[in-house]
Amino acid sequence: MKIEDLPTPCLVLDRTILLRNIGNMARWLARHRVPLRPHMKTAKSIDVARLATAGQPGGITVSTLAEAEYFAGHGITDILYAVGITPQKLDQVAKLNSAGAAVIVLTDDLDTAGAIAAHRQPPRALIEIDTGEGRGGVTPDDNELLEIAARLGPYLAGVMTHAGHSYSGRSLDDIARIAETERAGVVRAAERLRQVGHAAPIVSMGSSPTALHAQNLDGITEVRAGVYMFGDLFQAEIGTHDLNSIALTVLTSVIGRRPGRLLVDAGGLALSKDRSTADAPKDYGFGLVLDAAGKRDLGDAVIRRAYQEHGVVEADPMHPLELPIGARLRIAPNHTCMTAAAHDRYFVVEGGDEVVAIWPRVNGW
Amino acid sequence: MKIEDLPTPCLVLDRTILLRNIGNMARWLARHRVPLRPHMKTAKSIDVARLATAGQPGGITVSTLAEAEYFAGHGITDILYAVGITPQKLDQVAKLNSAGAAVIVLTDDLDTAGAIAAHRQPPRALIEIDTGEGRGGVTPDDNELLEIAARLGPYLAGVMTHAGHSYSGRSLDDIARIAETERAGVVRAAERLRQVGHAAPIVSMGSSPTALHAQNLDGITEVRAGVYMFGDLFQAEIGTHDLNSIALTVLTSVIGRRPGRLLVDAGGLALSKDRSTADAPKDYGFGLVLDAAGKRDLGDAVIRRAYQEHGVVEADPMHPLELPIGARLRIAPNHTCMTAAAHDRYFVVEGGDEVVAIWPRVNGW
Repeated sequence: MKIEDLPTPCLVLDRTILLRNIGNMARWLARHRVPLRPHMKTAKSIDVARLATAGQPGGITVSTLAEAEYFAGHGITDILYAVGITPQKLDQVAKLNSAGAAVIVLTDDLDTAGAIAAHRQPPRALIEIDTGEGRGGVTPDDNELLEIAARLGPYLAGVMTHAGHSYSGRSLDDIARIAETERAGVVRAAERLRQVGHAAPIVSMGSSPTALHAQNLDGITEVRAGVYMFGDLFQAEIGTHDLNSIALTVLTSVIGRRPGRLLVDAGGLALSKDRSTADAPKDYGFGLVLDAAGKRDLGDAVIRRAYQEHGVVEADPMHPLELPIGARLRIAPNHTCMTAAAHDRYFVVEGGDEVVAIWPRVNGW
Repeated sequence: MKIEDLPTPCLVLDRTILLRNIGNMARWLARHRVPLRPHMKTAKSIDVARLATAGQPGGITVSTLAEAEYFAGHGITDILYAVGITPQKLDQVAKLNSAGAAVIVLTDDLDTAGAIAAHRQPPRALIEIDTGEGRGGVTPDDNELLEIAARLGPYLAGVMTHAGHSYSGRSLDDIARIAETERAGVVRAAERLRQVGHAAPIVSMGSSPTALHAQNLDGITEVRAGVYMFGDLFQAEIGTHDLNSIALTVLTSVIGRRPGRLLVDAGGLALSKDRSTADAPKDYGFGLVLDAAGKRDLGDAVIRRAYQEHGVVEADPMHPLELPIGARLRIAPNHTCMTAAAHDRYFVVEGGDEVVAIWPRVNGW
């Protein structure tokens, strides 16, 4: 099967670029002698997970229990569910763990820590540490850290932080500084726990930007990152991914033509309504338009508007787009995690136009 | 099963409100003596389609071939695929039509009209008319209209327009004016076709706003509308839907708490990144926060930020949110078509907290 035979819109994943991105991250972390627990929230695919865990301890991170169930069903047992747990979700975790998985949960809440410890089959739990993002977590010096740890007792497995504010870093120096704050904060939290007798074996940090730009990972036992596997326009804009190393694109067909613009069959559902590049140095609208081979030879053509199933391509005046109805284009996404989520499979290529595999994804909750 | 037993995030669909919305549209169009061809791109559910087509001729509108296949498989045969067709998609249409469906396609392109007529099993086709939206279609007085009609020959079934720019109307008078332009334009196109001998039996217009606010539908043979079934915050802001008649909400759980705000497990995937209310009179962020019963008693609490799986609820200072981890809330969406698309089913209630049915959805392409 060739790319031109595929139904549109669909996801095209370039395995050659994917392997290069995975290799770059592995080599970087190997220099720090810190293993990777890849975050599968972007790829949501066992085929990608196998590539991303190769040469690593084998554990993964997930963002939904649907992912945990899917990956456990495919033989991955060491799973960190890195979104704050609710007491109601503990039964589903227990069910997975009874069936052989070792799902670790996350909390920053005293009552929830109590619910975990009181469950008939408590999972191991990490305490979420806020190292500056201000989303979830207790700060490293908060007294509540020790109270939550005491409440978890033997189920405490360590600490975790996510410096999601690294995404608002506007230079690699910014990101390196944020990475150091992230590292120092979560290590400080682990040290406080150890001072009062907790083992806290897991000290987990990560985001693709800080994983790739941390200068020092002392005290960190694992790094989490996900979007680096595919990359996207936003990561390229903040300098943490090469624009030519975006592994995932949306294949689309021309469905309308007017002077200076085209309609394509990739709209707000196929691309997502993510506008993360709106405030970036370069605003790509809803995505950058590439040719059918995934090459950037259409200049600055972007998806300027996105209806549910229609995308409006605004051509670059220097690169007129004279294409017939049915012609194929590929769109590099603003935010690959959001774009991939509308699709149930990847059509895998290796640089060329031959589809070498179809890899399913797990979506939903 | 009760709402409190449901896994989160998930869709809750209130059948009582849905039936009221469907009844209002049917009564309004009955006054004009024009039937409805409901657009199923919002609901994507056979159960909803059965309610929306009750008392109507029975045909529907779809936005993807996946919907066409799904609804045809559930016995609905009269299907308008209302997104510009490509020559490559004609085989799939032919396959559905061979199996008993009567899928009608849409084009505004001369070459594509030729490809339709030359197919081994041509579907009937509508010509898309641009009555002011400027997305797709030929204008009513364009010479190309007659050329495309000639190329389609016996497969020409009529004309269709979509006044999507009614969404930017800022008053009901605006919308009524746009509806009249939409009606007059598509009827004019049909008249031109009839003057040269084409039957053009179908003269189709629609969008929920213009369907509900047209004062005159003379010459129109069918109206298409979809979002009116569920409604959303954006439709409420433009005055075409009652804020208390939004049938679809996202059920979510509290997963974090800080002064003045909460974290919930409905983020950018469960809600979509749609920000259509950003420019509306009232900006609801990524959605309006309701209590677990779907009532608006939390004031102006909204989802201010949306990460992949985390939503940040900004409380209304007049309505402090003191809720434990695991407490339930419901979120009214900005744009119901986009929000529903991340979910594979509806949990159906009838005003109360009892789940009376589970209705699947068809997603993807």
